[in-house]
Amino acid sequence: MKEKDFINIIKEITQSRYIGDDCAYLKDLGIVVTQDNLVEDVHFSLDWTTPYKLGYKSAMVNISDILASGGEPKYLTVGLSLPKNIDENFVKEFYKGIKSAGIEVAGGDITGGDKVFISICAIGDTKGRKISSRANAKVGYKVITSGFHGSSSAGLKLLQNGVKDHKFIQTHLMPQSREDFSKYIAQNADFDYAMTDSSDGLFDALLQIAEKSHVKLFINSIPYDKEIEQFENYMDLVLFGGEDYELVACVPKDFEVPNSYTIGEIKSGEGVEIFGKKTEFEGKIFNHWSKQ
Amino acid sequence: MKEKDFINIIKEITQSRYIGDDCAYLKDLGIVVTQDNLVEDVHFSLDWTTPYKLGYKSAMVNISDILASGGEPKYLTVGLSLPKNIDENFVKEFYKGIKSAGIEVAGGDITGGDKVFISICAIGDTKGRKISSRANAKVGYKVITSGFHGSSSAGLKLLQNGVKDHKFIQTHLMPQSREDFSKYIAQNADFDYAMTDSSDGLFDALLQIAEKSHVKLFINSIPYDKEIEQFENYMDLVLFGGEDYELVACVPKDFEVPNSYTIGEIKSGEGVEIFGKKTEFEGKIFNHWSKQ
Repeated sequence: MKEKDFINIIKEITQSRYIGDDCAYLKDLGIVVTQDNLVEDVHFSLDWTTPYKLGYKSAMVNISDILASGGEPKYLTVGLSLPKNIDENFVKEFYKGIKSAGIEVAGGDITGGDKVFISICAIGDTKGRKISSRANAKVGYKVITSGFHGSSSAGLKLLQNGVKDHKFIQTHLMPQSREDFSKYIAQNADFDYAMTDSSDGLFDALLQIAEKSHVKLFINSIPYDKEIEQFENYMDLVLFGGEDYELVACVPKDFEVPNSYTIGEIKSGEGVEIFGKKTEFEGKIFNHWSKQ
Repeated sequence: MKEKDFINIIKEITQSRYIGDDCAYLKDLGIVVTQDNLVEDVHFSLDWTTPYKLGYKSAMVNISDILASGGEPKYLTVGLSLPKNIDENFVKEFYKGIKSAGIEVAGGDITGGDKVFISICAIGDTKGRKISSRANAKVGYKVITSGFHGSSSAGLKLLQNGVKDHKFIQTHLMPQSREDFSKYIAQNADFDYAMTDSSDGLFDALLQIAEKSHVKLFINSIPYDKEIEQFENYMDLVLFGGEDYELVACVPKDFEVPNSYTIGEIKSGEGVEIFGKKTEFEGKIFNHWSKQ
């Protein structure tokens, strides 16, 4: 089964109103909340990262979801399971890494297990901010993004090929969150807007917005690091690589966001068209289940 | 290393103000939050439970933490990792079990892994409720509890001995949360009070309160199911068994809580004295790390 099939089952059983965006927006409490897992040998390898970097990234992927909602990241709770041969130093470095992401740790649980398993919940404040939804993209809006795509998966390829040090590896292991981009939109928007992060790849982010908003996204420009052109089929990395944690937003054309790249526009229709080609990309989307 | 040692490291590194109670009370957001892990073959065996019961209990252990804080349980997020041989039916039944605990699922993540790993975050509302702390017990207060202790671990012993059906097994696999007890105190207290649940055993709950409040708890009566007397060393089950998810609270002597048992009183001093004996029980406290 694919992750998507599982999510459909979960939606059906729980009848939850909240599944579908990067965060659940709990209006009665004025918060946004998200939870992501990171599993050893599925999402990361201890051969390639350090406990510090792993802690940082584990926090960051959840902070990125809060930012994708437009919320202000405030607290983390950390569920951690560790094999018994893991030493005290691992735990220290891991939590130093978490702390370096800048958000307060409010609790969690630590247990024994066979492999390193991390499940982090992040909570954001919505005071003074307009919260996004993937369903909010509208015909006539533009599509913008916060930075380069593909660098993280290029870094993963380099690690797989035995390279130890490269700026793309840095992006893969220590991605930056896009707090300024998120905050600017959430604090200044007097309109509904769509936003998500590119954790599962740029194409998936665009497709999620198109499907949930029932619009068509026309993409005519994608920012990426020119060095990525040295990789074979580099556009696959740019479009489907994932884990760049850049933000993608759909906002009115006259709304200017500092340090953003305009990558396309929204028209009526369904789906995503990139450089004039409407293709069926779905099989390439990052899927933790199919990788097993 | 023991779980306690890890927690001390985490406290030292994160400098978190929130670690030490069943929940973190995030006053700026008006919420309480908790996260607990359940790991296959550490916390449960799929030979003894069903996916439905596992889902229910996974939700319940976190709901119990919210109740221990005095908060109103509102939302769960569910981090789940499953081996690839797990089928669709497991996921359906697991989420039906979660839903049966009565709290809305607001999101989460599902990933692949080697064993079943569950990490659930629960969020509670604090509106109209006084929130507890283990540090709030005072000399002159009484110690009360919401129900019987030891039944859950007696159920575990029966399962280990091949018994399939017994009321103690029901308590172990499908523990009840004590919402009325918690709500009554939290909505009626105009004083500071201590509360925790007996997830790690009654003695541990008492010791946590004594240590954090710098008082001495004198326990002279413990409610348990008389049938437990058939077990060898049954008082070990009653005191150290854990997983009954009964609440233990310290409140003023004249504050009457419906359906509660008064089990002792608080005097100046340090520690816990049970039936006139002050013993060093700590080695018997439930510890997932030492069991590996």
